[in-house]
Amino acid sequence: MSKLEKAITSIVEVFEECAGTDDDKRKLNNAELSTLIKTQLSSAEFRDKVDQEAVKEALEGIDKNRDGQVSFKEFSQCIAKLSNGYFIKKYGKEKGKGKH
Amino acid sequence: MSKLEKAITSIVEVFEECAGTDDDKRKLNNAELSTLIKTQLSSAEFRDKVDQEAVKEALEGIDKNRDGQVSFKEFSQCIAKLSNGYFIKKYGKEKGKGKH
Repeated sequence: MSKLEKAITSIVEVFEECAGTDDDKRKLNNAELSTLIKTQLSSAEFRDKVDQEAVKEALEGIDKNRDGQVSFKEFSQCIAKLSNGYFIKKYGKEKGKGKH
Repeated sequence: MSKLEKAITSIVEVFEECAGTDDDKRKLNNAELSTLIKTQLSSAEFRDKVDQEAVKEALEGIDKNRDGQVSFKEFSQCIAKLSNGYFIKKYGKEKGKGKH
């Protein structure tokens, strides 16, 4: 598989590893989410690379429907925001031309 | 960096590699996008893993604002959909409980 395909499959694999501690393998409960953040999203090297506002926004807004759990769809949106935070730190925010 | 952090940085790196062939490093033009799809999203192993409807939807809808180019934000949404397509193929679609 390519570098991008491996990245996509890794995102699912990490979610599975963290979501698997209780009987609902499809969702992260609060404890599983904090373990994921501590073990998978806390290295100093990564935190230096990513726009901190983007990290805060991505993690605070992760449980979009506020059901106390994080579905894979919500998780994948958080990952999209974090990768965007890395891109913004490298290239700066888009100048004015619309939202996209 | 962790497995997830490497996946997130790889997404940005692959975008940069493909978007860098013209003077606008922040966007994929049509030629760059098709090169990315051919070289980074076409292995049989990956295509077997991912729900084909999700692949179609992710790639067809990638240029959300229809400006003929793909921004990183649009690209990161496409990656979120593809990873969701892999998750759905593994776990099946969510039963009825709302969109998330």
